[in-house]
Amino acid sequence: MNQSRVTKVLRQMAENNLPQMLVSDPAAIYYLTGKWVHPGERMLALYLTQSGAHKLFLNQLFSVPEELGVEKVWFSDTDDSIGILSRHIEKDSPLGIDKNWPSHFLLRLMAQKGDNAFVNGSAILDRIRSCKDKEERDLMRQSSRLNDLAIERLIKLVPRQLPEKKLAQLLPGIYEELGADGCAFEPIVAYGPNAADPHHGPDNTGLREGDCVILDIGCKKDSYCSDMTRTVFYKYATAHAQKVYDVVLEANKRAIGAVKPGARFCDIDAAARNHIEAAGYGKGFLHRTGHSIGLEVHDFGDVSSVNTDRVQPGMIFSIEPCVVVPGELGIRVEDLVLVTEDGCEVLNRCDKELTIVE
Amino acid sequence: MNQSRVTKVLRQMAENNLPQMLVSDPAAIYYLTGKWVHPGERMLALYLTQSGAHKLFLNQLFSVPEELGVEKVWFSDTDDSIGILSRHIEKDSPLGIDKNWPSHFLLRLMAQKGDNAFVNGSAILDRIRSCKDKEERDLMRQSSRLNDLAIERLIKLVPRQLPEKKLAQLLPGIYEELGADGCAFEPIVAYGPNAADPHHGPDNTGLREGDCVILDIGCKKDSYCSDMTRTVFYKYATAHAQKVYDVVLEANKRAIGAVKPGARFCDIDAAARNHIEAAGYGKGFLHRTGHSIGLEVHDFGDVSSVNTDRVQPGMIFSIEPCVVVPGELGIRVEDLVLVTEDGCEVLNRCDKELTIVE
Repeated sequence: MNQSRVTKVLRQMAENNLPQMLVSDPAAIYYLTGKWVHPGERMLALYLTQSGAHKLFLNQLFSVPEELGVEKVWFSDTDDSIGILSRHIEKDSPLGIDKNWPSHFLLRLMAQKGDNAFVNGSAILDRIRSCKDKEERDLMRQSSRLNDLAIERLIKLVPRQLPEKKLAQLLPGIYEELGADGCAFEPIVAYGPNAADPHHGPDNTGLREGDCVILDIGCKKDSYCSDMTRTVFYKYATAHAQKVYDVVLEANKRAIGAVKPGARFCDIDAAARNHIEAAGYGKGFLHRTGHSIGLEVHDFGDVSSVNTDRVQPGMIFSIEPCVVVPGELGIRVEDLVLVTEDGCEVLNRCDKELTIVE
Repeated sequence: MNQSRVTKVLRQMAENNLPQMLVSDPAAIYYLTGKWVHPGERMLALYLTQSGAHKLFLNQLFSVPEELGVEKVWFSDTDDSIGILSRHIEKDSPLGIDKNWPSHFLLRLMAQKGDNAFVNGSAILDRIRSCKDKEERDLMRQSSRLNDLAIERLIKLVPRQLPEKKLAQLLPGIYEELGADGCAFEPIVAYGPNAADPHHGPDNTGLREGDCVILDIGCKKDSYCSDMTRTVFYKYATAHAQKVYDVVLEANKRAIGAVKPGARFCDIDAAARNHIEAAGYGKGFLHRTGHSIGLEVHDFGDVSSVNTDRVQPGMIFSIEPCVVVPGELGIRVEDLVLVTEDGCEVLNRCDKELTIVE
């Protein structure tokens, strides 16, 4: 158990009058114990209590180190896992539940512990996880450093004129050579008009001169995720493409310039969005400006017009404005930023000025 | 909407005194509507009611065809999706909940509709889905046919002596050439002693003469999954390996021989397990004999010692006995079977007699 992280959680639970909580998200359990368990459909829960008698409930099929620093309660596939769990939970006392715990576990627990109040306890852990500690910041820097190197290699391969899918298929090998632990998500490679669909999956589309090329990629390294996007052009960029690129790049820079402790996420979103709208491309900026990232590509919290939370030091999120012009192109420039005491550190160093590849 | 499937569900709901149900599993929604929606963290629910006023609740970010045959209720990221949902649910009336619906949705709905009884409604749909209709049987045959062809190609590549991971990386290209829609799960390629770990992920281990080679692969085709395992040997098989292979193959055949309507899943499991135990390898048979499969690699229901449900025509599941000898080898022979009126049809036709590749 990472005692300083557990202490933070218990303190926040106390402030929220929550005496006990079940953590079931594997990433949150890794955050607190340093151990990944992927339970599939099986029950997995870390029980945290102000009394200090924390317990990890897990199936015998999974192995964890002896010296995990928390009492283990084992069960088998033929045991009533929820019955076992319920015997360890304090009666007549509110219980925090993980936001994504499958409902059938909760319904069974409620049937056995109807005298408890069940509340969504995830916000406590999510907010703590959103501010990365020193160790996490270093891991996030390292993951993004590998991603910078990977995208530079991938951009050099664009002139091979591979279909989108074939270019995307080269990425796992690049990550492997660089020592990353694989893709954090399915990479997006989109050429020309395909780039106007933000959900485009790489297909057999070939590369044509003048195409924009969106590369949206991320790796995992030591459990932490990177995520970045660069848009380059093959052979040439039309005057219109250059104009749109300038608008998106400036929006990226303005949003990054707005990142500092105390700023609201919605203000950072507005810094990008207002610029794009003023340039007449507001309808082409289809999504929020960014999302938190860490152990998961999409950690809790986003940079959007409806998030009035304030930015704090240690937070890491993406800044990824885009403009799409249906039938013609899509341009996105994405960096990860780490909030510092007086601004932010941009984790991606790969060049983002307009680039033509020959 | 697939009216015959919806009718089956409503009939089963009535038999279980369930007037209304929320279906949130994307595979179940595809099963009933013919449309995949992957909502990520967003709310998605198909509301089924005996009154016939079914509704699909979905975020504006997702698109579905106009002519889906069900009323759509749209909401945006800034709407209270659960508030909107709750206004459409009958008061004072039990409501079925999908087993994997994230708890935070359920807790919010409960806070607004405390007068309803909430029950896990998934068993109804899961049981209906477990018996594949004619269209599904054909799709499952087709998916397994492609998987047969793929594993034959993969076996021919074994003599290249690639590291496990490199051999595994050839599979997506093979599926693509064959016209499959990609891998249904991360393929398992394990050589020699690595094959003794059922959770082994392909790594940089190289192939040595005398190694067993486990290939556990599956593709998707038109949304339906295949899954099969073959174990072959490189250059030669030791006398012990041949003996273990014979035991596992015979267990596979005995379990398949036990499949017919009315048989209990636990009896099928026992047909394989008893043979392996009698041969002295009981401790090496680490897992259940099989699992249901269809739109998901692991559909509801398994072939295990604790499942006393009876097999019915149209069910499709895997038969995959194994024996592992730690430090030495692992052998698994897996086929999919479709239950017929008087026995079963084996969906995999790839040879499963002991095979040495040179």
